[in-house]
Amino acid sequence: MIDRAAEAVETTMSEDDVGAFVPGQRFRVEGRAGGPLAGLTFAAKDLFDVAGRPTGAGNPDWERVHPVPTRHAWAVQRLLDAGAALVGKTITDKVSLGIFGENAFYGTPRNVRAPDRVPGGSSSGSAAAVAAGLCDTALGTDTGGSVRVPASFCGLYGIRPTHGRLDLSGMVSQAPSSDTTGWFARDADTFARVSSVMLCEDIPRELPRRLIVATDAFAFADPPVAAALQPMVEQLGALTGWVGDAVLAPPGLTVWAGAQRILQPYEAWQTFRDWADRANPRFAFNVARQLAQAAAITESDLDPAREVREAARAHMHELLSPGTVLCLLTTPFPAPLRGQPWSILDPLRARITGLTVVGGLTGSPQITIPGAKVDELPIGLSIVGRAGSDVTLVALARAWATQ
Amino acid sequence: MIDRAAEAVETTMSEDDVGAFVPGQRFRVEGRAGGPLAGLTFAAKDLFDVAGRPTGAGNPDWERVHPVPTRHAWAVQRLLDAGAALVGKTITDKVSLGIFGENAFYGTPRNVRAPDRVPGGSSSGSAAAVAAGLCDTALGTDTGGSVRVPASFCGLYGIRPTHGRLDLSGMVSQAPSSDTTGWFARDADTFARVSSVMLCEDIPRELPRRLIVATDAFAFADPPVAAALQPMVEQLGALTGWVGDAVLAPPGLTVWAGAQRILQPYEAWQTFRDWADRANPRFAFNVARQLAQAAAITESDLDPAREVREAARAHMHELLSPGTVLCLLTTPFPAPLRGQPWSILDPLRARITGLTVVGGLTGSPQITIPGAKVDELPIGLSIVGRAGSDVTLVALARAWATQ
Repeated sequence: MIDRAAEAVETTMSEDDVGAFVPGQRFRVEGRAGGPLAGLTFAAKDLFDVAGRPTGAGNPDWERVHPVPTRHAWAVQRLLDAGAALVGKTITDKVSLGIFGENAFYGTPRNVRAPDRVPGGSSSGSAAAVAAGLCDTALGTDTGGSVRVPASFCGLYGIRPTHGRLDLSGMVSQAPSSDTTGWFARDADTFARVSSVMLCEDIPRELPRRLIVATDAFAFADPPVAAALQPMVEQLGALTGWVGDAVLAPPGLTVWAGAQRILQPYEAWQTFRDWADRANPRFAFNVARQLAQAAAITESDLDPAREVREAARAHMHELLSPGTVLCLLTTPFPAPLRGQPWSILDPLRARITGLTVVGGLTGSPQITIPGAKVDELPIGLSIVGRAGSDVTLVALARAWATQ
Repeated sequence: MIDRAAEAVETTMSEDDVGAFVPGQRFRVEGRAGGPLAGLTFAAKDLFDVAGRPTGAGNPDWERVHPVPTRHAWAVQRLLDAGAALVGKTITDKVSLGIFGENAFYGTPRNVRAPDRVPGGSSSGSAAAVAAGLCDTALGTDTGGSVRVPASFCGLYGIRPTHGRLDLSGMVSQAPSSDTTGWFARDADTFARVSSVMLCEDIPRELPRRLIVATDAFAFADPPVAAALQPMVEQLGALTGWVGDAVLAPPGLTVWAGAQRILQPYEAWQTFRDWADRANPRFAFNVARQLAQAAAITESDLDPAREVREAARAHMHELLSPGTVLCLLTTPFPAPLRGQPWSILDPLRARITGLTVVGGLTGSPQITIPGAKVDELPIGLSIVGRAGSDVTLVALARAWATQ
């Protein structure tokens, strides 16, 4: 099957050069014989438990104080049961905090599609490994963009499923109201096969009948990005048969992002505060600063943010009637250069999360599709559906890729 | 000469067990032959430049982005010129931020006088090395208590000289308005010899004639600490011939400490912000949190704090007429247990800096004298003089020890 977005893996980099795997965590666990994913390989972000191996969570002071798990995370077990072979654990930003994929402890995985650029994070190693052809698919987590952003930067298919749909047992939590398990693939067919297994649902032939272009989201894009994505928007529109436009966030995406910048860090601090207290873990300064700011959020800050979230969820439910899909850019620009000061990266991060907020705040499923480039750098287009419509999105992505 | 406070070095710990030196930074540079400190050995906290060796500042991400110095720091050169031999560089809390001496990167030096306790910091390795007999004296820095606290916890003589008196070239700065170079010794005679060289002034025979006991400072002490220090207060009073009491901080030590908690972190952030931005250095969470809080201090917070400082300096000048010395406890309690969560350590830190604030805020010289114990743990008594009276304090400490 021809895939219009899947690129051949062309790299002269060795696996060591890519640096996607946690040092010492390259191994092989065979999947069940004869399953639907037999013959495929996968990697798991180091936030997922693999029995008998430490869960590192991107921070040496996590591993130091947490016991080695005795059973696989649900997502790992699901893929093994379906026949895929697990080939290692991949590097993640520190306890999933980080959107660029630069890790001071384990190194920054190399983005083979843009070697001088960051891979995106926090599921940086999973994206880098799939992009480099070191495995067919890989598990990531997405709380605030951690699958969607590296998928966009590395030119991959990636999904953030409907919040609450998958069993997250054995996955290190960050902010439970927004945490999801996602995955990557280089081509739409593999992506659909893995998605069907993970979502426990067949991918339908039927496609959504309406495509809504989110005008306010496209206003976030660098102009060449919007132009590069335009052909894909038109192709998706042709597949659905009807194209309209709408405002994604009536109060403004910055209002949504502002609410999520209270809700998500507040929960993250609840998740990590006891560990931070007992282990006094080392963090890169910008990560520690996020957590320190999170620690200063009070209960009274939450109510207005929760009101914004409720309104956002109601709006998405109304906008996305069954058969309707929303289209927006995944990231406002391609991957930034590696090794930049955070005084440069912080404003970029704010622009990215201004777009990725839709997933964490509303719980809607989102798929990012590769296929566009700006200055030879990959950039993804996203489709979002109403809660529970994950397989419809997968169907549309596959139809687009293989038509 | 008999020293009433100097304890024999009695330990079965190996040098490796003590862990005072930075890994790989144990070496020997001979001092000038025939100088006044000939025969003595010293170590330098890893904030001081030693030509040809990296300055680590307690953080691997400092060394990574700073060139290896080509000349010695002034203080190192001064001791070498006086004949002392340099035997290595000692562990420090991260860029001098920290009062307990626990370092996640290089380990926490062992306090031989209280092996299950923290050594105190940030000049942790220097204090631990001197206490363990691995050298005769050692250089530290004191911005907010970083010589005085480990001296108290390890049972050593330690000095924070008059602010601005010593040349700080080649020493990593934290907050220039409060930074000083200090040193440690096990006995008063060595302490006086080194002090004379470092202060470039003879130690006089004449003693101060008045001792003022700081009532508000003693109110900060755990009751057994105040009781344990009382005999030393009486002995010092007998030496001066006149004892009175006074309030050290008329607006309250907490007001002084509150002002310094604005002034010192604000300056520290100015010092470290460019490095933090470029290198995104790793910190233990509680250190990063301090810096993140420092980054939030604005210019407009400074004016009231500066007013408190001016008033404090004027008060000290008035209170400490020539020949008058103030007496207070160095720390409100002996060294806490190692490895405690910072939810326990943070309030202890606040109590300590509520006492050590006097040095950083007013610039007054302060010497801490060992000789008391609580539950077999060392605890220091401090004497403070007016600006410039450093040698008078040294004279009193020596007279007390050898009378």
